[in-house]
Amino acid sequence: MRFGIVARRDREAALKLAYRVYDFLRVSGYEVVVDSETYEHLSEFREEDVRPLEDFDVDFIIAIGGDGTILRIEHRTRKEIPILGINMGTLGFLTEVEPHETFFALTKLLGGEYHIDERIKLRTYINGESTVPDALNEVAVLTGIPGKIIHLKYYIDGGLADEIRADGLIISTPTGSTGYAMSAGGPFVDPRLDVVVIAPLAPIALSSRPMIVPAGSTVDVRNMAANREIILAIDGQFYIHLEPETEITVKLSPRKARFVRFTDEVYPKYTQKIKGKF
Amino acid sequence: MRFGIVARRDREAALKLAYRVYDFLRVSGYEVVVDSETYEHLSEFREEDVRPLEDFDVDFIIAIGGDGTILRIEHRTRKEIPILGINMGTLGFLTEVEPHETFFALTKLLGGEYHIDERIKLRTYINGESTVPDALNEVAVLTGIPGKIIHLKYYIDGGLADEIRADGLIISTPTGSTGYAMSAGGPFVDPRLDVVVIAPLAPIALSSRPMIVPAGSTVDVRNMAANREIILAIDGQFYIHLEPETEITVKLSPRKARFVRFTDEVYPKYTQKIKGKF
Amino acid sequence: MRFGIVARRDREAALKLAYRVYDFLRVSGYEVVVDSETYEHLSEFREEDVRPLEDFDVDFIIAIGGDGTILRIEHRTRKEIPILGINMGTLGFLTEVEPHETFFALTKLLGGEYHIDERIKLRTYINGESTVPDALNEVAVLTGIPGKIIHLKYYIDGGLADEIRADGLIISTPTGSTGYAMSAGGPFVDPRLDVVVIAPLAPIALSSRPMIVPAGSTVDVRNMAANREIILAIDGQFYIHLEPETEITVKLSPRKARFVRFTDEVYPKYTQKIKGKF
Amino acid sequence: MRFGIVARRDREAALKLAYRVYDFLRVSGYEVVVDSETYEHLSEFREEDVRPLEDFDVDFIIAIGGDGTILRIEHRTRKEIPILGINMGTLGFLTEVEPHETFFALTKLLGGEYHIDERIKLRTYINGESTVPDALNEVAVLTGIPGKIIHLKYYIDGGLADEIRADGLIISTPTGSTGYAMSAGGPFVDPRLDVVVIAPLAPIALSSRPMIVPAGSTVDVRNMAANREIILAIDGQFYIHLEPETEITVKLSPRKARFVRFTDEVYPKYTQKIKGKF
Repeated sequence: MRFGIVARRDREAALKLAYRVYDFLRVSGYEVVVDSETYEHLSEFREEDVRPLEDFDVDFIIAIGGDGTILRIEHRTRKEIPILGINMGTLGFLTEVEPHETFFALTKLLGGEYHIDERIKLRTYINGESTVPDALNEVAVLTGIPGKIIHLKYYIDGGLADEIRADGLIISTPTGSTGYAMSAGGPFVDPRLDVVVIAPLAPIALSSRPMIVPAGSTVDVRNMAANREIILAIDGQFYIHLEPETEITVKLSPRKARFVRFTDEVYPKYTQKIKGKF
Repeated sequence: MRFGIVARRDREAALKLAYRVYDFLRVSGYEVVVDSETYEHLSEFREEDVRPLEDFDVDFIIAIGGDGTILRIEHRTRKEIPILGINMGTLGFLTEVEPHETFFALTKLLGGEYHIDERIKLRTYINGESTVPDALNEVAVLTGIPGKIIHLKYYIDGGLADEIRADGLIISTPTGSTGYAMSAGGPFVDPRLDVVVIAPLAPIALSSRPMIVPAGSTVDVRNMAANREIILAIDGQFYIHLEPETEITVKLSPRKARFVRFTDEVYPKYTQKIKGKF
Repeated sequence: MRFGIVARRDREAALKLAYRVYDFLRVSGYEVVVDSETYEHLSEFREEDVRPLEDFDVDFIIAIGGDGTILRIEHRTRKEIPILGINMGTLGFLTEVEPHETFFALTKLLGGEYHIDERIKLRTYINGESTVPDALNEVAVLTGIPGKIIHLKYYIDGGLADEIRADGLIISTPTGSTGYAMSAGGPFVDPRLDVVVIAPLAPIALSSRPMIVPAGSTVDVRNMAANREIILAIDGQFYIHLEPETEITVKLSPRKARFVRFTDEVYPKYTQKIKGKF
Repeated sequence: MRFGIVARRDREAALKLAYRVYDFLRVSGYEVVVDSETYEHLSEFREEDVRPLEDFDVDFIIAIGGDGTILRIEHRTRKEIPILGINMGTLGFLTEVEPHETFFALTKLLGGEYHIDERIKLRTYINGESTVPDALNEVAVLTGIPGKIIHLKYYIDGGLADEIRADGLIISTPTGSTGYAMSAGGPFVDPRLDVVVIAPLAPIALSSRPMIVPAGSTVDVRNMAANREIILAIDGQFYIHLEPETEITVKLSPRKARFVRFTDEVYPKYTQKIKGKF
């Protein structure tokens, strides 16, 4: 088995734990590679083991950080590599274990006592082209100028779903339902479901509501204001400005995110974390 | 083909249209039966064609009324008979055609130009027994005393989903998502989805949110206040008072509701009706 | 100075603390009376000092309990007696000190180091008659049958404010804004303001919103469904069934509630408690 | 009496009506000036009557347009000149009459049959300096990067009201309560009240709620993220980027907006318009 290691770069404890995991796996005889950006912040790793995330070709990635670290891995790796997340963030909706459980978790992983939790992702087509990363959480179509509303129409499988004047529109996976979509008034969605949440962000019309649609739907978003630039934000990490007349289409991605889990518990694991959001 | 006819009893136009449909189908050579309660309000039907809804054994039911009329049919018939709903109500989320389209619709139905839209229903078990009608819209667990909150815990497949102090808890199908669940803050759910909406009603905790769970989930609701009676309301039509210690379980029903449709349009058919709610 | 003592009846610690306060004040030479219902649960008080709340004629009431205890005092006393609330409840939006601060607080009170926080109350007129207690928190006009919506119109100073189909309508003081009105979607209102919150409870129309109106407004509520009985609930404590055609009017009461305070802090005192609601 | 005329510049009907009003008032013997930007779009006005809004020194301004036109006048004039708004926009929460009532309204105005509706405004201090226009609707403190939350603390009269991670914070007058604050979940506020609405915009914490505070409050907003630029938007019209460490204070302005009204109706005039928001 080969492993990849990625750590949150702005927290020393995460980098140190990453090194201990690296050391433990190497001593145990496994091949281990380390993400270049992690290496930039902690140079103790062997240089020959350093790779850019894009070149990771391993069986598992050990991610030490928060949900942001996992989103970075998802956006940059080219293969569907299962991730074991060790929580060095705040709530950790995506991570599986706390730091003190790290070596216990690695032992279980090496012993095969785990299962893989597959999560759907959303692919965005800009004027028909897929040029941006898949979203594990959400695709947000946002006003280019904070505070200036945009005027959008959105269609599900060709049928007009709603026309809104709003700060934006959030198109979210179940994984992302506890994130930006929830701030926009959307519900918690069981991560096992193949559905998509569509939630208008601060809409003017009080009758515009979040929707739950089949994951297989084609969601088309059209900007109705010819002079208003919009922003596309993928998982709060990847940003692109789009010309007003751009055609945006969001569909189920053929790729999935894969996470190492030691239980298949959903309740209260995720629903209790919602109460801790701050 | 045999047909059943059911009309809204409090609107003369519905009863008159019911008679015209009855007459048209009989003249066209079909066997037609009429619901006893409809007959009580318009005695022109032949007495020999009158049946209680419970005994309807027909190929299609023509329902002339609003969503309430369709819910009454669903609660009382014993077979999964497809319903063609003619809208004599207000919004008509369940009905398919407007009154002026009645005979055009019947002609298409007789000509086989239709499809069947199956909708999931929820079955409620009270202390393990199924003694109440299946819900097409929602099962509401409500305070027995308006304005006095109840204290509930609810579990999804055995895992604690949330603990609430609230006026009640709404457990809704996608069909019911535009009803009571939406008044409680729930999203619109595409009627093709196999999911259940669980929405707390006026909860004290601001962090209690609507959830979307798989339709196959077992939802257990427990009343935590030993001295507080609760009410179970099915589709806003069937009511039962429950002792405080009653165990309530809601699951996917093995039965489905079946509707005659002439298009499979969802958007904007349903989402635009939301804006007309008043 | 004369004092009255009232304790929460269902918690022994509250009754015991009440006795210690009683003893402390008597030993200090003050005249002290005890509420009859408190006495029913702890018979150590001198019988000659026991009075029904309605006959309390004292300078201060020491209330040991939660917000419910204070609401009971407000509903039953006939004079505007300042209350010092010692929190033996959960959040204690109305109480001023925690149990361990009791004697420190009494000393300050006896030393004159306090101020009086006056809060507005709402008076309800049923067909023009004032026969129910003033509300310190809210007047709730509710469906008589849980889950069956009522159809109401409400007017501010004679002008139609909204027409709703809902579970009810909450008319709240700033003091009550953190209670039922907030569960219905209303905002936090600074307790120093002379305003009233009007919040529809689970309305069908998505465009029905909470409103803030001047405290001096006359709020008229009319039940539009001739056959639907409604319930009036004052502060979640006093309940009355009303005939469908009853005319309900809510106005500022000429009486105020008066609380002993040692600081005039509002922020974060009240806003942080909102986060603890459960 | 002297009059000023301002029209919406992007709608020919508004410019034409502006000219007819100008002509009517001049023929009636009044002194009339015209806003320079209106003149740029319709050159039929006499050049000698053209003035920048900043130099308007008249008794009344006739505004032909929507709420945007009125906000532009408020931001640029230096005196508290009463405005008569003729609605050439969509909903027109601020305008008083419809175009076909123009000359009837002018006749009443000339005859003295009107009253003045004064509305509070908010003044923003940036590091203690007042350099931006007063807000008639709202002051919005927004993320500089759409979709990237900002971390704010806000204080009322020095007391911490809340700490939020959100897209922004809306501080609104009653006049603005039907605008951006309502999209953020705030209530309708009677325009006669001297209160301020503070509403977090898409907050992460579900327990962060809109608040109503006295208009005389000092609202301090602090950006807690040293590296995150923020945007201040006044009435959706005036924008300024602020360095992370900027201190923002919002207070009641000594200036008021003044509108010519022919009735003092609030209900249903404003509450019904809410239902038309789209």
